[in-house]
Amino acid sequence: MSFHAQILTLYPEMFPGPLGVSLAGRALEEGKWSCTPIHIRDYATDKHRTVDDTPAGGGAGMVLRADILAAAVDDAMVRQPTVPILAMTPRGKPITQARIRELASGPGVTVLCGRFEGFDERLFDARPHIEQVSMGDIVLSGGEIGALMLLDACIRLLPGVMGATSSGDEESFEQGLLEYPHYTRPNDWEGRMIPEVLRSGDHAKIAAWRKQRAEEDTRLRRPDLWGRYKDARVQPASDVQQKNKD
Amino acid sequence: MSFHAQILTLYPEMFPGPLGVSLAGRALEEGKWSCTPIHIRDYATDKHRTVDDTPAGGGAGMVLRADILAAAVDDAMVRQPTVPILAMTPRGKPITQARIRELASGPGVTVLCGRFEGFDERLFDARPHIEQVSMGDIVLSGGEIGALMLLDACIRLLPGVMGATSSGDEESFEQGLLEYPHYTRPNDWEGRMIPEVLRSGDHAKIAAWRKQRAEEDTRLRRPDLWGRYKDARVQPASDVQQKNKD
Repeated sequence: MSFHAQILTLYPEMFPGPLGVSLAGRALEEGKWSCTPIHIRDYATDKHRTVDDTPAGGGAGMVLRADILAAAVDDAMVRQPTVPILAMTPRGKPITQARIRELASGPGVTVLCGRFEGFDERLFDARPHIEQVSMGDIVLSGGEIGALMLLDACIRLLPGVMGATSSGDEESFEQGLLEYPHYTRPNDWEGRMIPEVLRSGDHAKIAAWRKQRAEEDTRLRRPDLWGRYKDARVQPASDVQQKNKD
Repeated sequence: MSFHAQILTLYPEMFPGPLGVSLAGRALEEGKWSCTPIHIRDYATDKHRTVDDTPAGGGAGMVLRADILAAAVDDAMVRQPTVPILAMTPRGKPITQARIRELASGPGVTVLCGRFEGFDERLFDARPHIEQVSMGDIVLSGGEIGALMLLDACIRLLPGVMGATSSGDEESFEQGLLEYPHYTRPNDWEGRMIPEVLRSGDHAKIAAWRKQRAEEDTRLRRPDLWGRYKDARVQPASDVQQKNKD
């Protein structure tokens, strides 16, 4: 059974869009994942197919109606009862690579994309199984591009999508660190050389250098990640593994 | 002069993609922004148009070559000398709404999209004007969807793209807080009512309620943002500016 994404949106024509190309596109052709964009307007109840209304209390823009959204979400639940439902909203919990891994290991995901000023908040009170997720601390014109990002991150982790050797284990965020820097030929470029150690053939030394660079870059560039990584290391992971082997 | 984006990519067919639809699509038709995808492969120097090579020191995947990327970046600089160049990489600085506002108020942006394992690090040593930017703590199959996200966030802030009343001032992250929750008709939905205060017509009370909800939701949902917001309020920004002037 392959990974299936339902996308509730006012712009179904945006899918698969960029996910129809390259790595994700190939995986789509091979049936490793599939997606069904569902038009939120199909759940409107009047002849104008209205999905939004003015914000209670005044203010700019329009708000997506709880009743229409709930009908769309409830229907998605009937079709795929066992998959998580994620709503794209800047008020949500920031997405993490750990959550992406969980999603990618499951049967799929339903993604609810907002537009305009956002969702009527009662939707989340009345349907607490909807996960509110933020794709970053910036404001977008709608949830669709966030949904594409979420799906791209999931799809590349599906079995057989990346090469067998690219498990993703050494990537940024997987160990709570940024990834170490990469180098490739030419060895001398504009007088800048590939670091000596990487050309040494000494695998232990290379691994140590990469770990040290990943830690150093994380400390300098992302003190937030570094703080969490250090806290988690109070008992070093390698010691724990060693002890488990003993 | 409208906002112009140059995108250096191995998948030029991904642009404008979803930005050709809805708000961004209308703005594109109206000439409020434009984009030129530039194929990185056009800067390859061999007959196979090679852009990548195996990682120095071993490991999975392929690394984009510094010489090819630098040629593409240098050429982009010649065409648009005054615009910032941003490289999409999980090793970069997390994007902020403040940086999006700066970009949107300028003439445009050049975005460098990676694929495979990433960029040869010497590119950033040799071309320090390239800003390394992360669109979130998750790993994507390439920089293209991050670029779409970045551009979408910029485009909606361009003059005349959103309605005059939707300045975005009250949105999430603009004041260092999440946005307050929204409500719209129907007033009674599944027995859940729009909060009384929002139907009071008392604008001062509504504003106070929204501020209180924005603060409370930020405190509960995003302790990281809340910490920074509180710190910034200990000494109000306006006081600091005053002192610097003295």
